[in-house]
Amino acid sequence: MSTGLISQDTIIALATSPGANGAIAVIRLSGSKAIALVNEVFKGKDLTKQASHTVHFGTIRDGESIIDEVLATIFVGPNSYTKEDTVEISTHNSAYIIERIITLLIKKGARAARAGEFTLRAFLNGGMDLSQAEAVADLIASNSAASHQIAMQQMRGGFSNQLKKLREDLVHFASLIELELDFSEEDVEFANRDQLKALIQQIHAVITKLIRSFEQGNVLKNGVPVVIAGKPNVGKSTLLNALLNEERAIVSDIAGTTRDTIEDEININGVTFRFIDTAGIRHTEDVVEAIGVERTREKMKQARLIIYLFDPTQDHISGVQEQIEYVEGLNIPFVTIINKSDLITDAQKEEYAVLNPIYISAKHQIGIEELKEELLNQVNLSNINTDDIMVTNIRHVEALQNTQEALEKVLYGIDNPITSDFLAMDIRQALHHLGEITGTVTTDDLLENIFSKFCIGK
Amino acid sequence: MSTGLISQDTIIALATSPGANGAIAVIRLSGSKAIALVNEVFKGKDLTKQASHTVHFGTIRDGESIIDEVLATIFVGPNSYTKEDTVEISTHNSAYIIERIITLLIKKGARAARAGEFTLRAFLNGGMDLSQAEAVADLIASNSAASHQIAMQQMRGGFSNQLKKLREDLVHFASLIELELDFSEEDVEFANRDQLKALIQQIHAVITKLIRSFEQGNVLKNGVPVVIAGKPNVGKSTLLNALLNEERAIVSDIAGTTRDTIEDEININGVTFRFIDTAGIRHTEDVVEAIGVERTREKMKQARLIIYLFDPTQDHISGVQEQIEYVEGLNIPFVTIINKSDLITDAQKEEYAVLNPIYISAKHQIGIEELKEELLNQVNLSNINTDDIMVTNIRHVEALQNTQEALEKVLYGIDNPITSDFLAMDIRQALHHLGEITGTVTTDDLLENIFSKFCIGK
Repeated sequence: MSTGLISQDTIIALATSPGANGAIAVIRLSGSKAIALVNEVFKGKDLTKQASHTVHFGTIRDGESIIDEVLATIFVGPNSYTKEDTVEISTHNSAYIIERIITLLIKKGARAARAGEFTLRAFLNGGMDLSQAEAVADLIASNSAASHQIAMQQMRGGFSNQLKKLREDLVHFASLIELELDFSEEDVEFANRDQLKALIQQIHAVITKLIRSFEQGNVLKNGVPVVIAGKPNVGKSTLLNALLNEERAIVSDIAGTTRDTIEDEININGVTFRFIDTAGIRHTEDVVEAIGVERTREKMKQARLIIYLFDPTQDHISGVQEQIEYVEGLNIPFVTIINKSDLITDAQKEEYAVLNPIYISAKHQIGIEELKEELLNQVNLSNINTDDIMVTNIRHVEALQNTQEALEKVLYGIDNPITSDFLAMDIRQALHHLGEITGTVTTDDLLENIFSKFCIGK
Repeated sequence: MSTGLISQDTIIALATSPGANGAIAVIRLSGSKAIALVNEVFKGKDLTKQASHTVHFGTIRDGESIIDEVLATIFVGPNSYTKEDTVEISTHNSAYIIERIITLLIKKGARAARAGEFTLRAFLNGGMDLSQAEAVADLIASNSAASHQIAMQQMRGGFSNQLKKLREDLVHFASLIELELDFSEEDVEFANRDQLKALIQQIHAVITKLIRSFEQGNVLKNGVPVVIAGKPNVGKSTLLNALLNEERAIVSDIAGTTRDTIEDEININGVTFRFIDTAGIRHTEDVVEAIGVERTREKMKQARLIIYLFDPTQDHISGVQEQIEYVEGLNIPFVTIINKSDLITDAQKEEYAVLNPIYISAKHQIGIEELKEELLNQVNLSNINTDDIMVTNIRHVEALQNTQEALEKVLYGIDNPITSDFLAMDIRQALHHLGEITGTVTTDDLLENIFSKFCIGK
């Protein structure tokens, strides 16, 4: 464990969102002097003599000038998020007041916290492991039932516990093999090679499953990228609005919980579908010629799903089939939609049947629910049990892949005439990469990189 | 006191600013069932059995699903802001989590709070008077030392106490005079007319002072409106930027306290100067002809101060004098500035001396400090003692003016042959208007009007 980032400073930051629409704001301090520093500027009870987890009303004063009437909450370490003494000052939500209080306490000896520094301290002080700390940021960013569930499970240690068990088993064998090294002249085998092989294979299987979970986990965390395509004026925007409006209505129902503007995302049964803007795809005859087609094609390839829209008042079946062939060529799942279903003739309906389309009217909100169900079916996420451990972090996948490689070397080494010291080295390599995930093995650079992406105050 | 707005519901709202840049968010509930409702969804200690002002770690669950790990703070009424049982739930700052917790607690029986409803309850339950409640909103909106100081003083009851004293004295005389009515046939005078007259005159003087403080108070609260004028290309924008940039640097110094974008406002020694955009004022020859001049003139009249800028490389002294005459005609204090002072000739300097200008170079940041001092001098606010009670609320001024009118009737009545019952009526009228300020006299409409301007969660 590196210690370069451990500091004894008392840090301070605004912990709530800045902005004019709140009633209160919370300023957080952590460190050995947190309580004493606040006490210097607090008029009320003596905060240094209060029990942990208690709240005290008083005023924050700069000399004789009252900055605000506040509530100060005391957390005595290690019974706090950071495991250090912590004070949370709840103030009126005025940027002026917040700035004055933070400035005052910095003058008294606190230091402005860096991004993620509270959570970094929680990690360094043993309050959580690295994958849990990373999950805190994911939890804050979560915006769907699925992404929330994955982050919550990771924060509460589900992923860490699974890795910990694997790692313990592996450590056991590593120590046996390293013991063999001490007796290398006697050619003993403390570590049963068959048991070791079985264990490595078992760990390999679990890690393979975790690596495979990444694609789904990533989709659940970041949303399913979808392209709505079709010729101009078939109703793409109308359909997008029909899908979006409903969602927005739900969000705006709860006063005071305004989401950050989410452009072109919908949430169906807890799964986020994220719409990618494209210039659209044109009639096949134009495809070969048109400038920008390659770009559109590239964008469509980012999609995990294409919704292809036809307008029966505009498209003839032969043209439709040409377009379908083009989309099929992209090798991405797609849903065929006939829009303006209220204007369709019976003859057309017969012709279209071969495409097995969904009939909707984006304008009249007909068939939207069926479309949503089909979207869920297509991405095949409805039956995912989010209680399963799921990897969503690219850093974790890389560490798992490195572990996997080392494990494969170990398996090769067991089946081939390789000396114990090389076997031990490969096992240590696997342990090293597993440890990177939970932070048993870490570097200052890695920590800087992880926590700098946090917001200040966390 | 009206009671139509008192309700026994338990209300809930997000109390912190919405937005993605915070680490934590606080959801607030108030009402008789606040603690029991949260306890239903909280896994941890039994919250209904905890002491006031204590904080408890646990999870909020919707059935088996964990929504978040939270801290729940218990305030047992009347020891809370609203004087009712209150719970503050500190969650991870995710819009998804906030929405789910609020939705869950509404399902359990809470009601989404209306704007200002927590503070309305604080007022209705006797936690503060009306002018104090109004000051809470002013405090949150305060963005300068002066506006902050005025709001803080008002919230802490300075204004209310002064009125309360006046009102008590007046009530004493009103009751004596009403006593006379009971003995009207006997022609007694319980209320000494000379003492009454002296008291009314004293109250009249205090109220006059309060009404007069409004102009200054309003300027301190909302900023001094300033127009930077001058012909095109004399450096108006450069000067504005020179003034603004310094301020912005100070603000951005403290990480995490991003102010809402304040366009074109600077703060000098705690006083806010607010710049009004105008099309500018042209050379006097054009003034008569140009379209839009009247509009510019109207805008300039809104200013409390004009900064008039000349460019010595462009303006000849005769033209300058013409422009000065025009500005003088507006009857608004103005500061004459010669920009590009590094390019001025000695001959020009002699010519300009008659204008008693300030020489600056906006580009090279020369003379900016002197200009700031002059701005402060001009508005004559530097010597205002903000410890004086200052009226900043138009509603209060109106009530004070109505009180004033009634007092003048009383004075007339004392000096003229008017019966005690008319005198009593005028005194009651004065008492009524004084009471409107602190909310001793109020109506549902008035309260609705005041509290609907608050944010939700306050």
